[in-house]
Amino acid sequence: MTTYLGIIIAILAIVISTIMDGNSFGALVGPSSLFLVVVGSMGVSLSGFQISDLKPAPKAIIISFTGKEPDPGEAIDRLMKFAEIARKEGVLALEEQLEDLDDPFMKLGLQQIVDGVDGDMVREVLEIEMAALDERHNPSINFVKAMGSYAPTMGMVGTVVGLINMLGNMSDPAQLGLGMSVALLTTLYGVIFANLVFLPIASKLQRLHDLEVAHKELLLDGILAVQGGASPRMVVERLEAYINPDMRVGHQERSKRVSGKAA
Amino acid sequence: MTTYLGIIIAILAIVISTIMDGNSFGALVGPSSLFLVVVGSMGVSLSGFQISDLKPAPKAIIISFTGKEPDPGEAIDRLMKFAEIARKEGVLALEEQLEDLDDPFMKLGLQQIVDGVDGDMVREVLEIEMAALDERHNPSINFVKAMGSYAPTMGMVGTVVGLINMLGNMSDPAQLGLGMSVALLTTLYGVIFANLVFLPIASKLQRLHDLEVAHKELLLDGILAVQGGASPRMVVERLEAYINPDMRVGHQERSKRVSGKAA
Amino acid sequence: MTTYLGIIIAILAIVISTIMDGNSFGALVGPSSLFLVVVGSMGVSLSGFQISDLKPAPKAIIISFTGKEPDPGEAIDRLMKFAEIARKEGVLALEEQLEDLDDPFMKLGLQQIVDGVDGDMVREVLEIEMAALDERHNPSINFVKAMGSYAPTMGMVGTVVGLINMLGNMSDPAQLGLGMSVALLTTLYGVIFANLVFLPIASKLQRLHDLEVAHKELLLDGILAVQGGASPRMVVERLEAYINPDMRVGHQERSKRVSGKAA
Amino acid sequence: MTTYLGIIIAILAIVISTIMDGNSFGALVGPSSLFLVVVGSMGVSLSGFQISDLKPAPKAIIISFTGKEPDPGEAIDRLMKFAEIARKEGVLALEEQLEDLDDPFMKLGLQQIVDGVDGDMVREVLEIEMAALDERHNPSINFVKAMGSYAPTMGMVGTVVGLINMLGNMSDPAQLGLGMSVALLTTLYGVIFANLVFLPIASKLQRLHDLEVAHKELLLDGILAVQGGASPRMVVERLEAYINPDMRVGHQERSKRVSGKAA
Amino acid sequence: MTTYLGIIIAILAIVISTIMDGNSFGALVGPSSLFLVVVGSMGVSLSGFQISDLKPAPKAIIISFTGKEPDPGEAIDRLMKFAEIARKEGVLALEEQLEDLDDPFMKLGLQQIVDGVDGDMVREVLEIEMAALDERHNPSINFVKAMGSYAPTMGMVGTVVGLINMLGNMSDPAQLGLGMSVALLTTLYGVIFANLVFLPIASKLQRLHDLEVAHKELLLDGILAVQGGASPRMVVERLEAYINPDMRVGHQERSKRVSGKAA
Repeated sequence: MTTYLGIIIAILAIVISTIMDGNSFGALVGPSSLFLVVVGSMGVSLSGFQISDLKPAPKAIIISFTGKEPDPGEAIDRLMKFAEIARKEGVLALEEQLEDLDDPFMKLGLQQIVDGVDGDMVREVLEIEMAALDERHNPSINFVKAMGSYAPTMGMVGTVVGLINMLGNMSDPAQLGLGMSVALLTTLYGVIFANLVFLPIASKLQRLHDLEVAHKELLLDGILAVQGGASPRMVVERLEAYINPDMRVGHQERSKRVSGKAA
Repeated sequence: MTTYLGIIIAILAIVISTIMDGNSFGALVGPSSLFLVVVGSMGVSLSGFQISDLKPAPKAIIISFTGKEPDPGEAIDRLMKFAEIARKEGVLALEEQLEDLDDPFMKLGLQQIVDGVDGDMVREVLEIEMAALDERHNPSINFVKAMGSYAPTMGMVGTVVGLINMLGNMSDPAQLGLGMSVALLTTLYGVIFANLVFLPIASKLQRLHDLEVAHKELLLDGILAVQGGASPRMVVERLEAYINPDMRVGHQERSKRVSGKAA
Repeated sequence: MTTYLGIIIAILAIVISTIMDGNSFGALVGPSSLFLVVVGSMGVSLSGFQISDLKPAPKAIIISFTGKEPDPGEAIDRLMKFAEIARKEGVLALEEQLEDLDDPFMKLGLQQIVDGVDGDMVREVLEIEMAALDERHNPSINFVKAMGSYAPTMGMVGTVVGLINMLGNMSDPAQLGLGMSVALLTTLYGVIFANLVFLPIASKLQRLHDLEVAHKELLLDGILAVQGGASPRMVVERLEAYINPDMRVGHQERSKRVSGKAA
Repeated sequence: MTTYLGIIIAILAIVISTIMDGNSFGALVGPSSLFLVVVGSMGVSLSGFQISDLKPAPKAIIISFTGKEPDPGEAIDRLMKFAEIARKEGVLALEEQLEDLDDPFMKLGLQQIVDGVDGDMVREVLEIEMAALDERHNPSINFVKAMGSYAPTMGMVGTVVGLINMLGNMSDPAQLGLGMSVALLTTLYGVIFANLVFLPIASKLQRLHDLEVAHKELLLDGILAVQGGASPRMVVERLEAYINPDMRVGHQERSKRVSGKAA
Repeated sequence: MTTYLGIIIAILAIVISTIMDGNSFGALVGPSSLFLVVVGSMGVSLSGFQISDLKPAPKAIIISFTGKEPDPGEAIDRLMKFAEIARKEGVLALEEQLEDLDDPFMKLGLQQIVDGVDGDMVREVLEIEMAALDERHNPSINFVKAMGSYAPTMGMVGTVVGLINMLGNMSDPAQLGLGMSVALLTTLYGVIFANLVFLPIASKLQRLHDLEVAHKELLLDGILAVQGGASPRMVVERLEAYINPDMRVGHQERSKRVSGKAA
């Protein structure tokens, strides 16, 4: 949501300030500049990656606009419940909880607990999973970052090409200003696409990735606590340290909330 | 305090040097430039974060002007007193000290000692707390840093838009200078807002965060020493290594000071 | 493949946008600029390396265009098969598998298992091998990166030399524009060679190196699992954590596939 | 010493090359530029720190001109002597050596040995001391670095303010050159103050800090060796590995030197 | 060798492209620019270091032109021979090999084995030695890097001084071009000295340092293997993992070669 909002605010800021200065938008229209900046930076960025790296990139860009951050509160509720079950009925009783789980990471961890895998091994497998997450997300993030860093360069290329032509053919000095005006347009498009499109998307993707990693760390810690036989109260106390103090409600409150929902 | 002071000194330096050069301020007034730089960089920065990340940002900016650094001397006094109580009356006697504590971090640590939690576990929970502090502060700091890095870019966008219009419509060459003058204004605002507003606030927030982390490390070390049964003297010696030599007064002096206060 | 494609797309973007603006290509031809940028940046880059570092550089550049990423799926199949053999017939039975192996890294690891080398020692030797891979690849990657960072500088040198001559000999002010146009050409070549040739090749080489390192980590993990007597099912589960969820097919599917191929 | 010398050489280089080019110094005098660059960058830098951080800054700047590097040779002599005493007469006999010691770090370590503190604890306390050294020195170093990075920006602000005024009031085009000349002056002052004053001071402070840290590492290693009962010969061999081969004289030579001094 | 070669190629590229463009070299001669850039950047760089840091710098610069990389093949041969002797005749028999050794690092390690020093201690002393190598080489490398980063700045200072004088005294507008031409010369010298002299030398020194560190790691590993009683075959297998696959010849081949030489 902030991605839409932020980009729209920034574009409005440019539009409104242009109007305030009494400048026209006609001079700012440049299809060739647009083409050079967008297609050129895409091409250059493309050449540094493998095709297989880039398959998830379009989906990633959509996610940067629509992606929701994970909800640690709900995860803590669930892990508290699992700790209760594990204590009362043993870890094998967790098996029937597996079906309701959407989160494949939590599912994988729980499955291993049920299978009686050793705690160190559970940690190891889940950490490999987290490293693989990095490995999967990084190419998309880096591709958008690359576009953001190549766009101003492509803009400068367009401007220099324009200047070289203008300066080399100064038959009509009156056209000097117009030529420079057109040449500068590519610079403008390069800067705008980098800073209003590519870099914000890359920042958002990075932020969503960081939130997901932090969430998985909470899950990993909770899963190991459940396996270790921690009490529901201890699980809540430990995991609430990960979240904002405003969102910490304590074991009692969470129990009530969960049993309320279940009722 | 230094934040106000520093920014006022820097602005005065610009104002005074402008007067010294006999330049006028009229040419430096540009509402459209102000609007583009402030709103534009806010928009672009916004799009790289989640709404929930940014809720604490306004409060953080106020803190950068008013925030006080933590007082390690007082914390050492307190931990010395706790060590004394723990040695004389046992760790359970620390429970009644919990009520007077404002610092939630020290409270959490002490509560765990009273609850008889194992030393390694106390360290672990407090370290998760410290990692969560990073997680909470970083988005605000990074948001202000982002505004500081986008402001000059938005300034440049405004200048290039101005130049394109001016060069494209050179009906009156006499206006060339005036046009460039107005176009350059956005560059000026971008540079000034980045370097006199956003980046100093970000530096101050980072510095306050670093001081808080260092303070929490001192607290963690002291809490574990108290739990481990260290003598008040040992606690003071160990913790004074964290602070400036000028501020080290030794166990005897601190004891006197604390009992003086208590009397 | 993407290297060709990406560079061609970027060049087309420049060509098409130049045509769209009605600019000519004649003004963009500059053999002296080409010479200065390519030979100059090669020379400067060369001086920071040893001759022996640079022997693999030409091969590396070709690989950046043709290199294929390693196939983790096939490696998992193989390691699953080895785990089966090791369990059924003992590790010595792996010896006859050694002949079919192309991958020298897997071969080295397997040979050591067959020789009865201790697990920690196997890990150590394979990790030295991986460090040596870094040591071998880095000079080539850094050489191409150096060319990418020196090319714009050489372009700027050419432009400044041109400007100094033009400004120093302004006998005919009418030539001013033409002189600047020619001077700017070297800047253009520097930017284009850096961003459309050297940097994309360096990125691709870095990416291929990173993929190879990640692949070797999977192999190392699998080899140690085989030596440790893990079941084929456990090997598959553990190693599939390294790969994209879309590509995870599970032990049963892989067994079928492998025996299908063998039949 | 090098700080004076280096800055004087660099200023002379500018002065002499200006004379060689037949340029006058009159055009380079600009009190307003000087004021803006120095006071402005001080203000901006100030706003990112706490007052308490900056108390040691003036002293630090003086140290950057006068500070001497620690003498590892003398420290090795002393530690060799301590090792001898500890072996012959026991660690308690080290107590009377404490009085002659100027170095508070060595004193602290030795005091702990005499007090019979455990080796791991000695290391821990001394490492906290070293971390606190970082904590104390970094704000001063970073403050001077900040001034070095803000000075060119303040210079650019002054130049843009000058250009805006000049371009906005081009009543007399003949004044154009003079106006630009004055405007550029602030850029010059910004670059000169950053590169000839602030950054060299920051580098020197960093270098002195690094040397002090390296020296304390040698001391820490030596103190622990003395406590561990190493022979004087072993202490010398171990500690001389830290210093330049030219300065390694061996145990025998050092013994002679020390007893010669004592005689 | 590559240092000479690379710098000569780059200078030739500039010379040839200048000729190709029909530009003259007369306009490129500027003793004052040369003086400012070389002496000025030396002065500024000097002020950030201690005199004692810089004593090895001139020697280091010469080494960057003449320095040879260490020969790992020969070191492996030697260590293989030592392993043989240690196995057959015991580690004390290594003493007579010490005399022939030129490499002080290998000598130090071997001496300690002969002295019966514990393996962990041998590793520790050799690692201190490697850290001290860093400590010794870094100031020289950083000094040359500093010159490379200050040279363009000094060039810019010279150009701005020139521009200020030219613009402030535009009595004869016809001289405008010539003045700018001369002013730009310092920029050119700054860029050329940084990129064709200082930075390549710094890169080469860094590369030679890295190669030396990698070589010492191989030696350290080999020395510990010899002490641990590894067979010559195992020593060769382990150490050949450090080197390029093309250069791996195996134990048998090496034995033959070594005994061939001895014969």
